[in-house]
Amino acid sequence: MALTIGIDVGGTKVAAGVVDEHGTLHARLRRATPSDDPARTEDVVADVVRELRAAHDVCAVGIGAAGFVASDRRTVLFAPNLAWRGEPLGAAVEAACGLPTVVENDANAAAWGEARFGAGRGTRTAIVLTVGTGIGGGLIIDGALHRGSSGLAAELGHLNVEPHGRRCGCGNHGCWERYASGRALVREAQEIASVSPALAGRLLELAGGRAEQITGHHVTTAAREGDAAALECFRTIGTWLGHGMADLAAFLDPEVFVLGGGVCEAGELLRGPAVATFAQRLTGRGHRPAAPVRLAELGPDAGIVGAADLARHRTDDTPRLEVVAVA
Amino acid sequence: MALTIGIDVGGTKVAAGVVDEHGTLHARLRRATPSDDPARTEDVVADVVRELRAAHDVCAVGIGAAGFVASDRRTVLFAPNLAWRGEPLGAAVEAACGLPTVVENDANAAAWGEARFGAGRGTRTAIVLTVGTGIGGGLIIDGALHRGSSGLAAELGHLNVEPHGRRCGCGNHGCWERYASGRALVREAQEIASVSPALAGRLLELAGGRAEQITGHHVTTAAREGDAAALECFRTIGTWLGHGMADLAAFLDPEVFVLGGGVCEAGELLRGPAVATFAQRLTGRGHRPAAPVRLAELGPDAGIVGAADLARHRTDDTPRLEVVAVA
Amino acid sequence: MALTIGIDVGGTKVAAGVVDEHGTLHARLRRATPSDDPARTEDVVADVVRELRAAHDVCAVGIGAAGFVASDRRTVLFAPNLAWRGEPLGAAVEAACGLPTVVENDANAAAWGEARFGAGRGTRTAIVLTVGTGIGGGLIIDGALHRGSSGLAAELGHLNVEPHGRRCGCGNHGCWERYASGRALVREAQEIASVSPALAGRLLELAGGRAEQITGHHVTTAAREGDAAALECFRTIGTWLGHGMADLAAFLDPEVFVLGGGVCEAGELLRGPAVATFAQRLTGRGHRPAAPVRLAELGPDAGIVGAADLARHRTDDTPRLEVVAVA
Amino acid sequence: MALTIGIDVGGTKVAAGVVDEHGTLHARLRRATPSDDPARTEDVVADVVRELRAAHDVCAVGIGAAGFVASDRRTVLFAPNLAWRGEPLGAAVEAACGLPTVVENDANAAAWGEARFGAGRGTRTAIVLTVGTGIGGGLIIDGALHRGSSGLAAELGHLNVEPHGRRCGCGNHGCWERYASGRALVREAQEIASVSPALAGRLLELAGGRAEQITGHHVTTAAREGDAAALECFRTIGTWLGHGMADLAAFLDPEVFVLGGGVCEAGELLRGPAVATFAQRLTGRGHRPAAPVRLAELGPDAGIVGAADLARHRTDDTPRLEVVAVA
Repeated sequence: MALTIGIDVGGTKVAAGVVDEHGTLHARLRRATPSDDPARTEDVVADVVRELRAAHDVCAVGIGAAGFVASDRRTVLFAPNLAWRGEPLGAAVEAACGLPTVVENDANAAAWGEARFGAGRGTRTAIVLTVGTGIGGGLIIDGALHRGSSGLAAELGHLNVEPHGRRCGCGNHGCWERYASGRALVREAQEIASVSPALAGRLLELAGGRAEQITGHHVTTAAREGDAAALECFRTIGTWLGHGMADLAAFLDPEVFVLGGGVCEAGELLRGPAVATFAQRLTGRGHRPAAPVRLAELGPDAGIVGAADLARHRTDDTPRLEVVAVA
Repeated sequence: MALTIGIDVGGTKVAAGVVDEHGTLHARLRRATPSDDPARTEDVVADVVRELRAAHDVCAVGIGAAGFVASDRRTVLFAPNLAWRGEPLGAAVEAACGLPTVVENDANAAAWGEARFGAGRGTRTAIVLTVGTGIGGGLIIDGALHRGSSGLAAELGHLNVEPHGRRCGCGNHGCWERYASGRALVREAQEIASVSPALAGRLLELAGGRAEQITGHHVTTAAREGDAAALECFRTIGTWLGHGMADLAAFLDPEVFVLGGGVCEAGELLRGPAVATFAQRLTGRGHRPAAPVRLAELGPDAGIVGAADLARHRTDDTPRLEVVAVA
Repeated sequence: MALTIGIDVGGTKVAAGVVDEHGTLHARLRRATPSDDPARTEDVVADVVRELRAAHDVCAVGIGAAGFVASDRRTVLFAPNLAWRGEPLGAAVEAACGLPTVVENDANAAAWGEARFGAGRGTRTAIVLTVGTGIGGGLIIDGALHRGSSGLAAELGHLNVEPHGRRCGCGNHGCWERYASGRALVREAQEIASVSPALAGRLLELAGGRAEQITGHHVTTAAREGDAAALECFRTIGTWLGHGMADLAAFLDPEVFVLGGGVCEAGELLRGPAVATFAQRLTGRGHRPAAPVRLAELGPDAGIVGAADLARHRTDDTPRLEVVAVA
Repeated sequence: MALTIGIDVGGTKVAAGVVDEHGTLHARLRRATPSDDPARTEDVVADVVRELRAAHDVCAVGIGAAGFVASDRRTVLFAPNLAWRGEPLGAAVEAACGLPTVVENDANAAAWGEARFGAGRGTRTAIVLTVGTGIGGGLIIDGALHRGSSGLAAELGHLNVEPHGRRCGCGNHGCWERYASGRALVREAQEIASVSPALAGRLLELAGGRAEQITGHHVTTAAREGDAAALECFRTIGTWLGHGMADLAAFLDPEVFVLGGGVCEAGELLRGPAVATFAQRLTGRGHRPAAPVRLAELGPDAGIVGAADLARHRTDDTPRLEVVAVA
């Protein structure tokens, strides 16, 4: 049994694990990220590797990092929350630990994990959407992770859905994640509470009476209780989610969509309206199969599992996905 | 020198040629399509093959057909203008001519031609847009033609650009080709002429005074003369073209865009505003290279050349693109 | 019994009649308009007056003219289809016939006719919409015709309903009459026929198979037969009509809406969806009465009747409406 | 000299004054509104009247109340913030004080004040916009206050400017006040601060670093310092303000627009972009005068002054405006 280490380096924590070739986690570790000090973050990563390999016979390290990764798959060009600029992360970890190391963007690593061992297993072309504060994701095309010519493929949150729409931090108006994300869900709820407080009684109650204090958890809680306003919030963002998915399908014609990220923990509350709209808007509907839309299965482990697997296949130029039999 | 035959089967004509491994055409033929009689269309194709191979030593046949092609790359599932339903075109041509035959969707074949030997040569990931009556196109990803899980990838004309926009024949509202195509160009011109005849003097003059008689050629002619209304028409559809291209780049991060199809014969009139808008809206602009946008080079031969090349590489599961040195 | 003459001067015809104080027509005349020759148009008007007064004892003349009328109610400042610029029409007719003469914009005259003797009788504040090629209309406020400070009130067709909408000849985008008029009806039908011919079979049949030949009469005919595509066209423009009416009601809170003009001959086909949308969007709905929406009753005579009545009341600064008992 | 009392009854305070026939205030009083107890609010109003008339010889009382007022101009049908339902306010005050009393909607009273003695003096047809949390206003048409057939005219905040736009408390989407009001200004600023904190540095500094704490005063302060983000917020809502004003002018063709309310204290910051857009979108621009757009002059006194003047003219069915010479 060959084991590899997968590490997910985010702005607040470093999560790591030992993973086998079936995607099973054999050990786990978690550390806080010293995010203001790039050198110390590397030390934390190296410590984590040393600690895990002390008890496990591992042959490689895969790191998913929240930033842009160069096409050498070893250098982090830019990481907004980690203070890295052109950081030779792969080389530093190799030097510190003596294990071959590969670096990937964290959303790509998580998408790869879901595609190989989670809700996308058994498929060769999958779109993984990570619906959290914004929308991220990854593309698996013909069995390989698609990184794009600049390593910037799958900037899914910034697809345009409303040409004269809401302002986005990227400088455009109408980006998808302004309509179909956790932040959009909260905005929708706050707006109902602000303009129609009578409709939003339960949401306001959960938020101590203040519209601006409504959180995503409040909306999910109220929706699960059957609150009409909260359900409408999910319907609204789910509809926008399905709207964009119809575009992605017209473009790439994937075998499957996988929905992950914090908002997808709401499950059918989000998936239901998304699938309905997707089916309604899919071009050629009726004359083609609609790709199934599955909820992610690995949860927050997807990044660790995906990074570890990318490490295992690091020598392939582009590690192709074999179809894994689903028991 | 190994030669193959490429055939482009459209609703009105069958165009064929003999092509070498450098994408050079050595002979050409053209026949009318007996489009109401599927069996006779196959006879025409077989005749064309016989006639071309009489003078050339060819080893395989590639056919680009205007329809949905099954994943066996031999059967046409549905061809709206050719009366084919589940037609075993590849098998029929092989039986008639004794040459191995591969069938591909015509837009895909043309995209492959441009990507291998035209404006996309030397790249591994290219988006080819065919801007004619509508918008078609093809995706070359990591050196392979991307067909999608149902053979329906790259339905680019039906990406949504306006959620409450113009009605489309596909049943949705706001499809890209309703805003950025030859038909959209004409519509724009007819609308100016209809609501503001004074602005559209030259366009109306070319059309014999009747707004509904304005054609794409009239708009191109007037625009080349510097007519303000015609230039505005190109600016409008070029802007929408660039708007959608920014989405495609956010999704796939290609190395290059290739613009082909009848409307692109207007050259910079269309490409200029498209590139300007693309650069303005590209997510991450300033922090990433903007993919170059090139005008197609093979013109109407792209389909023949691409189909012939796909025939040459038919035995590969997915014929990967080698980078061809550009002299 | 005091009689007055009312004259409706349009771009193609001059229609006149003798009208009593109950709005009853006692005689009628019609002449072609020599529209390219302003002086001759005045001759035609004077001839008409002479001919009518020969048989009737009339005391004044009212003229509704298709143009901007100065606040002296005698001078036509600008008439796009009549070649008049600063034309002293009232003075000329008085000089030729010796009868006091008042001039009004033709849409205002027709609105006054409907408000006094047609569908608006018995009300003091009415909005009359004339839905023809575009949208025109007139406002009766507190019993008086509201002309506006420049004589340009009630340019209803150019209220904005879509900020980024369809181009209008006025230079703006998204004017109401681009969405809710006879021209909009035809456009809708032609668009369905052009992008979805299969849905528009009956419409195309009526138009000899050519989308651009579909007329408003074809749409009305097909809709009366129950044709789904034609009904959808009426539903679309009726919905837009009601959408704008909700705005007019939020602004002016009238007692009644009167729908006239050629398109309103389709009756409930148009009025039905207009009333439904109006009721659905009226601000404060549920807490206020929704103004009734009535179809015009005077048809093409409204302009004659209204102009004649304005002549009768010419000496009032603003002739106030007395409430006429409805039998 | 004949004096009347004007009283402005809002949800939080009762403001009153003694006003002469030139609109000059001779005395002032202010009390808190006991808003949860309708009977006690009437006591406060009666106390105020007694206190003011003790020192001044007044002949009538006018009350502007924040609610729907019946056409008898004495009964408050519904006042959302004052707990009045069918309250006979006029009769109660008359009974308590022995002075003839007239009741009007507060926005109408303030509009009348501005039209008679403020920025609209000397005109007969004026649109007064009150831009505060929402948009309110009043219409003066042909010298009279236009109340509408249900007393609900001039619900200007709920004119529609975006058919698929922002949710409004009234149940519609896209109401004007969701785009051009104090609340819209704050929303714009909070949105910039939330999606692009770097652009909103000064706004965030004023708000203690928290986007949701940004107020209208912060935006005005920053805009006066020249802060680009704050100026953009005013430009955005000013543009929407002018957009709607162009519609109002197409409809009513007023002599003047008066801009009042809290947001208009920002003066040219708001008026500048509003006038620019108004001029750009006015239908028939170039062929007609654009109504001047003036900032209100009476500030928070407009309601007192207007109510007092309506009391003076209470016996006229509709008190017509005489043109007051402007010194």
